[in-house]
Amino acid sequence: MTAPAPGAGDTRFSRVAEVTPVGAGRFEAELDPAWTIAGKPNGGYLLAMLGRSAGRSSRHGDVAAASAHYLSSPDPGPVLIETEVLREGRSASQVRARLSQEGRPRVEALLTVTDLDDSAVPYWDAGLPTRSQVAYGDCDRLVPHLPNGMAVAIMEHVEVRLEPGSNGFTRGEATGRGELRGWLNLPGGEPFDPSSLLFAVDAFPPATFDIEFAGWVPTLELTVYVRARPSPGPVRVLQRARLIDGQRVDEACFIWDSKGRLVAQGTQLAGIRLG
Amino acid sequence: MTAPAPGAGDTRFSRVAEVTPVGAGRFEAELDPAWTIAGKPNGGYLLAMLGRSAGRSSRHGDVAAASAHYLSSPDPGPVLIETEVLREGRSASQVRARLSQEGRPRVEALLTVTDLDDSAVPYWDAGLPTRSQVAYGDCDRLVPHLPNGMAVAIMEHVEVRLEPGSNGFTRGEATGRGELRGWLNLPGGEPFDPSSLLFAVDAFPPATFDIEFAGWVPTLELTVYVRARPSPGPVRVLQRARLIDGQRVDEACFIWDSKGRLVAQGTQLAGIRLG
Repeated sequence: MTAPAPGAGDTRFSRVAEVTPVGAGRFEAELDPAWTIAGKPNGGYLLAMLGRSAGRSSRHGDVAAASAHYLSSPDPGPVLIETEVLREGRSASQVRARLSQEGRPRVEALLTVTDLDDSAVPYWDAGLPTRSQVAYGDCDRLVPHLPNGMAVAIMEHVEVRLEPGSNGFTRGEATGRGELRGWLNLPGGEPFDPSSLLFAVDAFPPATFDIEFAGWVPTLELTVYVRARPSPGPVRVLQRARLIDGQRVDEACFIWDSKGRLVAQGTQLAGIRLG
Repeated sequence: MTAPAPGAGDTRFSRVAEVTPVGAGRFEAELDPAWTIAGKPNGGYLLAMLGRSAGRSSRHGDVAAASAHYLSSPDPGPVLIETEVLREGRSASQVRARLSQEGRPRVEALLTVTDLDDSAVPYWDAGLPTRSQVAYGDCDRLVPHLPNGMAVAIMEHVEVRLEPGSNGFTRGEATGRGELRGWLNLPGGEPFDPSSLLFAVDAFPPATFDIEFAGWVPTLELTVYVRARPSPGPVRVLQRARLIDGQRVDEACFIWDSKGRLVAQGTQLAGIRLG
């Protein structure tokens, strides 16, 4: 009887997003086939790896702002991440990061890294948009395939739970509001940290599924602001679309931790074939 | 009698944002002292120059998505812009762009450039947030100084008109909603285009002025999505803050053209000294 290879079947975020330094500003990583949609790695997962690499390249460890442009989707397997510190400041630094596979750049990102002030408290909150109010246990877990049968491997590992009012699309009953609300939990209930929040803002299905099912909605650009270190536990998620025009859609995503603090915000522009 | 130097006193956007190619992926430009706040060039103005340079470096001419991280504020005067095409695609390309002054990088950006499809029509619109409804002529033009007397040279040239319900901060009567609504017009009524829209999303005062006056609110990161080529005329602007936490604030900005189409959206993270 053979012992399982170390890490085999272990789909915890801390492991699948691991980056290994192999020189100054160079990291090797392995894109896990478990963290894919229709065989392609999730865009937020890729950004989280760039965030981890940026944090290890600078004197500051926490990503405060990250912006990624997606050039061409990599496949599961080995990738190289290269970072360049553009400016090392007292309270924040800026880092460029690139993820390549087979010598081709796949994701290019800019990151502002800082040290989050854990004594800070929110000073002012617009209180909008209204956050999800349905409890975790009252939301149904999303099944790991799309309405067209396409496999979403990542949903077997990541727990996406949608509010009853948000999951109509799974029965062909989209509301037309372009809004999904619910909860997100990492494999094994692993607590979120600033780098896994970079994944969290891209973890939900496209909010356009609540308008009309459109197949693959590839992310073109993703920007994330991390506002605070989250408390342990699943996070509440609100993802909504604002405009579909010229075969592109923008989506905004808000993440609250288990104590109700807004800890991350994302905005993305994605391609969509509708109209 | 001497003729005025060409361009002297000419603060039109098409002139102040001019970039001159000086080699492959290299452009020279001059930051105009007229386009400054307290002596520092506006962040959207800098991004617009990077956008123009990116459009000229690729086979695609229109910026669809731009993300900038601000390293250190340049002064009015000469700057160098360098671009690198990361991927040249059929329908879109990705470009890196850097603005340097005195050999130091000041702004680093990533841009996805495309050719906007002028036959496209909006397919779906969330209809939110409610856009400004007060007519251009019924909005007061903002005066070129802050409540603390700080000079805002750019306001002498760019026309920012605020709705009566949004300009309370100029009289020390902020509403606390963190929202500014109104209109924007370029010097000489010059029509907006995709590159000047990169400026438009950063043209309004910080929405935090409608909460509490905080002096300088420096942009750390700015992301803009250009959704369509705007119709001529002034644009409607909605700028709002969402969360002030850890001495940072995020603001979202929406731009509608004179025909009421949502043509650009911006999101920024800025530093703020409150709380």
